[in-house]
Amino acid sequence: MTKSVKVIIVGAGVSGLKAAETLISCGKLGKDDIVVLEAQDKVGGRIQDSKIDQSKLGIPYALGALWYHDSLANSVLKEMLETGLLKEEDIYYDDKDGPTYTSEGQLDVSGLRLNRVLEEVIQFFHLYFNTERQNISCDEVVKEYIKSHSFFLTTEQKQYIRRAMRYYELWYGVPAETADGRMVLETHQGRNILNKKGYTFLIDTLLEKIPESSILLNQPVKSVTQRGGSTKRVVVGTKSGLEIEADFVVVTVPLSILKLKADDEFGITWNPSLPSKTQNFINAVDFAALGKVIFEFNNVWWNQDEDQFLILPDEIESKHWFNADGSPRPFSFPALAVNYSRLYNRGGSLVILTPAPLTDYLESHPDQAWTYFKPMLEKIAVNSVEDPISTITSSWTLNPYIRGSYSAVLFKPTNSESKNPDDLEGLELGNDVIRFAGEHTVTECSGCVHSAYDSGVREANWILNALQDFTPNL
Amino acid sequence: MTKSVKVIIVGAGVSGLKAAETLISCGKLGKDDIVVLEAQDKVGGRIQDSKIDQSKLGIPYALGALWYHDSLANSVLKEMLETGLLKEEDIYYDDKDGPTYTSEGQLDVSGLRLNRVLEEVIQFFHLYFNTERQNISCDEVVKEYIKSHSFFLTTEQKQYIRRAMRYYELWYGVPAETADGRMVLETHQGRNILNKKGYTFLIDTLLEKIPESSILLNQPVKSVTQRGGSTKRVVVGTKSGLEIEADFVVVTVPLSILKLKADDEFGITWNPSLPSKTQNFINAVDFAALGKVIFEFNNVWWNQDEDQFLILPDEIESKHWFNADGSPRPFSFPALAVNYSRLYNRGGSLVILTPAPLTDYLESHPDQAWTYFKPMLEKIAVNSVEDPISTITSSWTLNPYIRGSYSAVLFKPTNSESKNPDDLEGLELGNDVIRFAGEHTVTECSGCVHSAYDSGVREANWILNALQDFTPNL
Repeated sequence: MTKSVKVIIVGAGVSGLKAAETLISCGKLGKDDIVVLEAQDKVGGRIQDSKIDQSKLGIPYALGALWYHDSLANSVLKEMLETGLLKEEDIYYDDKDGPTYTSEGQLDVSGLRLNRVLEEVIQFFHLYFNTERQNISCDEVVKEYIKSHSFFLTTEQKQYIRRAMRYYELWYGVPAETADGRMVLETHQGRNILNKKGYTFLIDTLLEKIPESSILLNQPVKSVTQRGGSTKRVVVGTKSGLEIEADFVVVTVPLSILKLKADDEFGITWNPSLPSKTQNFINAVDFAALGKVIFEFNNVWWNQDEDQFLILPDEIESKHWFNADGSPRPFSFPALAVNYSRLYNRGGSLVILTPAPLTDYLESHPDQAWTYFKPMLEKIAVNSVEDPISTITSSWTLNPYIRGSYSAVLFKPTNSESKNPDDLEGLELGNDVIRFAGEHTVTECSGCVHSAYDSGVREANWILNALQDFTPNL
Repeated sequence: MTKSVKVIIVGAGVSGLKAAETLISCGKLGKDDIVVLEAQDKVGGRIQDSKIDQSKLGIPYALGALWYHDSLANSVLKEMLETGLLKEEDIYYDDKDGPTYTSEGQLDVSGLRLNRVLEEVIQFFHLYFNTERQNISCDEVVKEYIKSHSFFLTTEQKQYIRRAMRYYELWYGVPAETADGRMVLETHQGRNILNKKGYTFLIDTLLEKIPESSILLNQPVKSVTQRGGSTKRVVVGTKSGLEIEADFVVVTVPLSILKLKADDEFGITWNPSLPSKTQNFINAVDFAALGKVIFEFNNVWWNQDEDQFLILPDEIESKHWFNADGSPRPFSFPALAVNYSRLYNRGGSLVILTPAPLTDYLESHPDQAWTYFKPMLEKIAVNSVEDPISTITSSWTLNPYIRGSYSAVLFKPTNSESKNPDDLEGLELGNDVIRFAGEHTVTECSGCVHSAYDSGVREANWILNALQDFTPNL
């Protein structure tokens, strides 16, 4: 027998829960009108804080999002502060001008005027894409800058520009050789604020408004079928055989799941097929893997006054990033080490960001993390380097319902559909019954918690608006 | 008797000379077809390098433009390098991260995370003008940022933001209280390169292509009369009674002259009156006064390793910027001191930028310059402060044919015509006979040498294009 509700939400991450909470809070829908189907045995999606027993220092770490980005326009930050759920002591600006290292030691960024050059490289990206429409990779644009601007650059600057621009891999989660150059054009609206509190409280806050009975765990969705004829209702089928019918469905599964073929064990069958514009977007945009490695130590053996340490990669060809045994060679990828000891005065801990494909390897081989990072972290040492007392890694790439971190635009050969930037305007492409939400459905600051949150509000409001002049089809 | 030519160019600054050079170089106009009328007894307009006898250290200083701005897209820089007239030793990047001082001494910019805050303030300007169309002053936008963002700012940051944002006065030449906030939105295309060689060589290069007989000095233009009827020719009359008739006229006088009333001794009578759109632009845009004060010393008593020293003003209400006797109070305005001793290893010299109204005072009272700056420069001293052996100042505000430095958009009360930014799209507003060129006629990087230069090319090409299908009216 098919259960019937007004709205099905597929996915209990922040966008799905916010959509559910918005729908319920308006007072027009009852507690039996909404069902949230979650594939995993827990809610929260890609928001995940480490369990306290994983830390020998008793520190909770955000394994998913760590910062409030775009703090001038961040709805989550604004609302959580207004409601008093976030307090002054829960946030921390960790953006002091930090030191940069290479395999040769600390880099004299100021003496090399490297910051001025890097600012200019960003300006060059804008000029480049103002005149050239061909999509090339981040790294190719940087090489183009160096080539066309060679006269104005010192030998030393030329040596560091490409390596320093790989810093962006720690935003995008993919190598600069692979990332579409247009990713650099994204503008930001305010500083990043480190979220000491983690994000679990946000999920818990949303859950307070949603009846427990509305959320069905362990229900991976396998099919979305839109009825034809006089009724436009949609039937959602799960792996376990559950079938629920609804007037509207909000699909918030990660882009990595949408990209799977229907016959994949974790794929969704769409009946009828998704419109070509929607499918083109899903094909054109990719899924990155920004990961985290957290080391805990008995003591702080680096400069405790610094917020962050940036370690630049060597100039290593991508075919040499990994050894024959599959292990990564140190200094193959940029690393940003956040000095968590500034936040918690207990032993020492560093939270390190990693881009794909390093993330994939380290998440599968957490015991190899110290082998990879030790030679790099030795550069920041001011006292004797200690071995970690514990290592915690994210595991996004191992989770079949997630498969990475967030959406990214990868460089494709010229015959790709993604050639025209207008094709990448987000997945706000639902029809009048099937809607999409999640970080991949927004244009600005995709990949951010507040964007996913906002997309949940957007789709809930779309449905509330549609319900106003809605005649139910039974 | 009225002389007759094809093109009259009013003003022998860089835009006028470049227009003349472009017209002559095309080979379609003879040497008698063009007349350049210059009001002063010399060419070059606002490009002016100090005379060598003004310097006790034998150093030539650029009293007008000092940098090649927007170096990724600077036509003058590109052409002069290509032709070999500018060599590697003629340019210098003076943009090392420099120290900042206040009346209390050196400011710990990094420790205060002030650079991050100031980056955010700029992002706030963009957000502000994306949503609010009302034109308010730079300083008001900054105050709005501090107010709306107060929770996120430390007490110390709040103390320095307004003062640090007054740095922009050294770009705009006017106080932040007066500058329209939209001036901050201007984007840059590449680093600034200090021009060691000065700009006289550029004027000299253009003069090589223009017959000496084509340039008439000491001929301030008093009237521009466009004939009606079957002929559209225009007659330009000068103060000395000269009348020249032409098919086209390119007016390159500074905006400050265009703003004068017809009955002003230095004003121009337009017959018929300028079109209302042109006149509205002239009324809406103002004229700033960025000035220079150069001190020479026997020795370098500051840190010779720094390129520049930024000295922030105190928080002084504008009514207290000047003492009762009219002299400026130290620390009333921001100052940027360029360490010229990095370029010339002879004694010590500092080139200091000043905004209006300080510029006006110091240009009229150069003997007071050291009194004003001494308490400020004491802050950068690492050895005993010496008195200067010579002081050189610009004198733009004293020159009746210039009256300042370059165009600027000032904040006007809400009933001003400048409310709509679209009104400020430059003075590319000529008709089919009377054309305009000069720094004030470009939207991007107005006030820059290369913009004036480009505007000369633009108008010359416009005329060459018009001449192609032109039947002379005799």
